[in-house]
Amino acid sequence: MGLTRTLAGYALSLEAARLPSAVRVEAARSLLNWAGCAVGGSHHPAIDAAVAALLPFAASAECPLLGRSERTDALHAALINGMSAHVLDFDDTHLRTLMHPSVPVASSLMALAARMPMSGEQFLAAFVAGVEVECRIANAVWFAHNSDWYITGTAGVFGAAVACARVLGLDEDRSTHALGLAASQSAGTREMAGTMAKCFIHGRAAQNGLLAALLAQRGFTAASTALEGERGFARVLASRRDIDAITAGLGTEWELLQNSYKPYACGVVAHPVIDACLRLRRAHHPDPAQVVRLDLHVSARALELTGIAAPPDGLKSKWSLYHSAAVALVDGAAGEHQYTDERVNDPRVLALRSRVVAVADPALSEIEARATLTMADGRTHEVHVEAVVGSAANPMSDADLADKVRGLAFGILPDARVEALIAACRGFESLPDVSDIARTGSAAAG
Amino acid sequence: MGLTRTLAGYALSLEAARLPSAVRVEAARSLLNWAGCAVGGSHHPAIDAAVAALLPFAASAECPLLGRSERTDALHAALINGMSAHVLDFDDTHLRTLMHPSVPVASSLMALAARMPMSGEQFLAAFVAGVEVECRIANAVWFAHNSDWYITGTAGVFGAAVACARVLGLDEDRSTHALGLAASQSAGTREMAGTMAKCFIHGRAAQNGLLAALLAQRGFTAASTALEGERGFARVLASRRDIDAITAGLGTEWELLQNSYKPYACGVVAHPVIDACLRLRRAHHPDPAQVVRLDLHVSARALELTGIAAPPDGLKSKWSLYHSAAVALVDGAAGEHQYTDERVNDPRVLALRSRVVAVADPALSEIEARATLTMADGRTHEVHVEAVVGSAANPMSDADLADKVRGLAFGILPDARVEALIAACRGFESLPDVSDIARTGSAAAG
Repeated sequence: MGLTRTLAGYALSLEAARLPSAVRVEAARSLLNWAGCAVGGSHHPAIDAAVAALLPFAASAECPLLGRSERTDALHAALINGMSAHVLDFDDTHLRTLMHPSVPVASSLMALAARMPMSGEQFLAAFVAGVEVECRIANAVWFAHNSDWYITGTAGVFGAAVACARVLGLDEDRSTHALGLAASQSAGTREMAGTMAKCFIHGRAAQNGLLAALLAQRGFTAASTALEGERGFARVLASRRDIDAITAGLGTEWELLQNSYKPYACGVVAHPVIDACLRLRRAHHPDPAQVVRLDLHVSARALELTGIAAPPDGLKSKWSLYHSAAVALVDGAAGEHQYTDERVNDPRVLALRSRVVAVADPALSEIEARATLTMADGRTHEVHVEAVVGSAANPMSDADLADKVRGLAFGILPDARVEALIAACRGFESLPDVSDIARTGSAAAG
Repeated sequence: MGLTRTLAGYALSLEAARLPSAVRVEAARSLLNWAGCAVGGSHHPAIDAAVAALLPFAASAECPLLGRSERTDALHAALINGMSAHVLDFDDTHLRTLMHPSVPVASSLMALAARMPMSGEQFLAAFVAGVEVECRIANAVWFAHNSDWYITGTAGVFGAAVACARVLGLDEDRSTHALGLAASQSAGTREMAGTMAKCFIHGRAAQNGLLAALLAQRGFTAASTALEGERGFARVLASRRDIDAITAGLGTEWELLQNSYKPYACGVVAHPVIDACLRLRRAHHPDPAQVVRLDLHVSARALELTGIAAPPDGLKSKWSLYHSAAVALVDGAAGEHQYTDERVNDPRVLALRSRVVAVADPALSEIEARATLTMADGRTHEVHVEAVVGSAANPMSDADLADKVRGLAFGILPDARVEALIAACRGFESLPDVSDIARTGSAAAG
């Protein structure tokens, strides 16, 4: 049996009742983090622009938008909630591949949930199936793919498609076609870093996957060799690939257990630097004006992906470990409020940023960083972060995650709604109607 | 100035009044061929399935669908008309790159025309700008791109975006962002050959380009180096590229003059074989049952792209020069009715197909073919097609084109509507409201 069909069959046959409890727990944490990020990003200028452009094309008001009062049809809700959930670069990360698993799968499923009956248990099975499929596809290509492509755009669309195909009740043939139609929309190159187009690419993965399933439901066909074929996804979008990684441990090992949540609102590879700077600040209370120099030793990937020395605006600053280090020392934080145009142009941040010297150290893993602060009086302070907060070795606690969501929703939703949202996500498995989560997380009355 | 911005500026500054008359003539011929193909394809099972899936998501009924009575919003009309115009593989071809120029640009502009005032002259300028931009981008990559990608999906989206940006009145900045948002949706690999997903990829180029322009209109941003950047379209989607081809002769040379129209409803590289078989049939009236062997010498690309020896169904048969040769000899035609499941399984066609022997001959260009028919009585008949009908050296006449459209629309539109459609396309430049064309070509009353 072909690989594309194997994945379709796997997604259809997965049984919620047989999922290990650790997988259920991580699904709830992923959903909570997704909802918080979608609320937090919901009034970003990118989302305002998209809503203005797209509302005239909303066929119905059946789906809530997280953090907002407008409502749209399911296809637009998948896109807009997906963009909101990613625009702050604060969403979850599958650490091996740097895929953001929840944006495609949760955004598409939640949109569909407002259109058809979907219990928490149905959502659970479809969500896990979608995440496993997209992360496994990502495992097969990331090493020869991520330098060019946004893997959440390119591989995430498969997760959304197969998750939606499952809840729509498609058979194996039609689910396979849904994966083929997903492949036909697999897109998004990394040239878009630091522009609104990045969140668009991520949100489109959700919308395109849903569209693929809706077309396949009506008998629309695609190649059943979409992933493995000679001109299919894996060969065309990656110069090398490890096809066996897609099915290794399928059904017994869970990529969802490798999911992580960001404590900081920027590219995950810069997080060890932020941890280091926050520790230096807590231990030594350095006056930023007295910092002569900040030496950073980071992983090669950190410098490759977040090496922008002088970011021109808030969006680009998420890809600057220099800016991240400076705000961590000046503000003592690296939340969504540290990656704004205002913080990028703050004189104290600018001054400190110019004193940061970063080098790639091949001895350091991606969850590590070393920092040495040199003060005007000649004193130096050093720190070595061995496992960044949010890594598998040092995950965010449930309480940290809830606090992150509270911070994201502050000023957008009333406190009582935020607590209800947190409770709904934590207990989503027992909801008779999972779309309660989107209604609770929206800014509409009720 | 960057290349992406240069193309945006070019598209905005193009003046309809200064276009050479040959360009105007070809625009009208392209539009007529597009409309005929969209009507002809409008009841293909792929379109029926797509309309069934998408009608619940149509926000309005402002746009007619060619050949059909349903109406949708502009985004869905761009997709559905784009799919209809391509599904028969009968649409126009930019011979150098094998791009199908009109599907993205005409489908997106015609959708927009139902939403805003658009005169024939406005349409003309935007259509030519879009075709020039997409074909020039195609010129830069096709030789290292087409083996993996459907270039109408990947490069066509730029043409749709810039054409729509122009009629929406976007400035150069926003038009540049529209091109970036187009790049973010550039997709579609050739694994989808012979499935409904192929026409979906083509139709999405139209819809995605329109969406890009609508988002950019509201201030949504993208990378201004979408085409030329290190992680942009040209580097990521082509292993080699000729960037200078994009601007060579920009404003003085016209890719639209290289556009061609297919007399036969299948992959263009198989057309010389069909010409050869039709000539053999006209000259010798061979009884198919008496054919012992048909030897074909074809271009290397013909065998690469249309080398399917035993196509399983109508859609795949468009990529089989063996089937094309057989139906041309048996039916004396290679129109849309020759590429159906029924013709693929016809015993006489099957028998003749099995006697076709094709070899790639490096001495032959893509518009050439040689055929030798060997009969049971030992006689042989030879023919050499030096310039296939539809090539630049032997273009379809205006009368041929109108007959093609009449054939496509037969049984779908009343004769009077077809004649009105032909007249409207031929005279589109002087229409005060170019959306008359879509209304005339739809199957709605009035």
